[in-house]
Amino acid sequence: MKIRFIPIGTIHTPYKTKEGMPIQSIAAEGIKGSIKLKKKYVKGLLDLEGFSHIYLIYYFHKSKGLKLLVKPFLDDRLHGIFSTRAPQRPNLIGISVVKLIRIKDNILEIENVDMIDGTPLLDIKPYISEFDIHEIVKNGWMNEKKGNFKEIKSDDRFN
Amino acid sequence: MKIRFIPIGTIHTPYKTKEGMPIQSIAAEGIKGSIKLKKKYVKGLLDLEGFSHIYLIYYFHKSKGLKLLVKPFLDDRLHGIFSTRAPQRPNLIGISVVKLIRIKDNILEIENVDMIDGTPLLDIKPYISEFDIHEIVKNGWMNEKKGNFKEIKSDDRFN
Repeated sequence: MKIRFIPIGTIHTPYKTKEGMPIQSIAAEGIKGSIKLKKKYVKGLLDLEGFSHIYLIYYFHKSKGLKLLVKPFLDDRLHGIFSTRAPQRPNLIGISVVKLIRIKDNILEIENVDMIDGTPLLDIKPYISEFDIHEIVKNGWMNEKKGNFKEIKSDDRFN
Repeated sequence: MKIRFIPIGTIHTPYKTKEGMPIQSIAAEGIKGSIKLKKKYVKGLLDLEGFSHIYLIYYFHKSKGLKLLVKPFLDDRLHGIFSTRAPQRPNLIGISVVKLIRIKDNILEIENVDMIDGTPLLDIKPYISEFDIHEIVKNGWMNEKKGNFKEIKSDDRFN
């Protein structure tokens, strides 16, 4: 089975290269970006502005190759790719939750962007507290890393 | 730009058809399912078992056609597709957060499944409280719907 997707628009951010980019949207607080949606999809934005946070699902278009074991930015030990958010995945899918500020026609102003400028957008979904906030019992290897992920920036390890 | 993805495995659930399926994982509490990962990706699961919750990113393989305006299960008014989780999207991508119970070789036992049996899996990511729990100011049209989404089941409207 081959699955084909198309970009529904483009995400614009201040990050022209991966070096120095925040590694998660939580570490990108206040960083402004925008989405340029293809005009034919504008009707699908109806009522989205009622949500303060949205999921962006996008294509890691600058990522090459697959690594099943990676050293993520937050640790110096190897972890399985599926227990990290690193981009070198079997399918190059990224997800981020960003703040939705304003929609005008096909342009969405957003904040807390943690992706590279020009990233192809695949989908937008509303972040809904009843669906998306889960009481977490185990945070895996992340448990030991609390507190320092806001300072850590991306580097060239996934080029 | 054409983007090609491949299934990395298959999600198994008790739901052979869409009718009667829970509409979100929060409404599927305790419903058991499993993932059969392709064996070549097993190494990528290292350390995943440390997380109690995981994102599944999957392909709505039973969904046909695109609707920019939909009546979701939780409302009888039309909303833009991007302000809903309905499957008839430009790219047929679904996301759910499920509970991870156990991993044995290439089989992941999971709970809180809200997708149809046989759904092709595209990606697994850890749900990390620091990254994925957001303080929500506006829940859009969902605000008025609080409380009844656990009882509402899927029907044939998106067939």
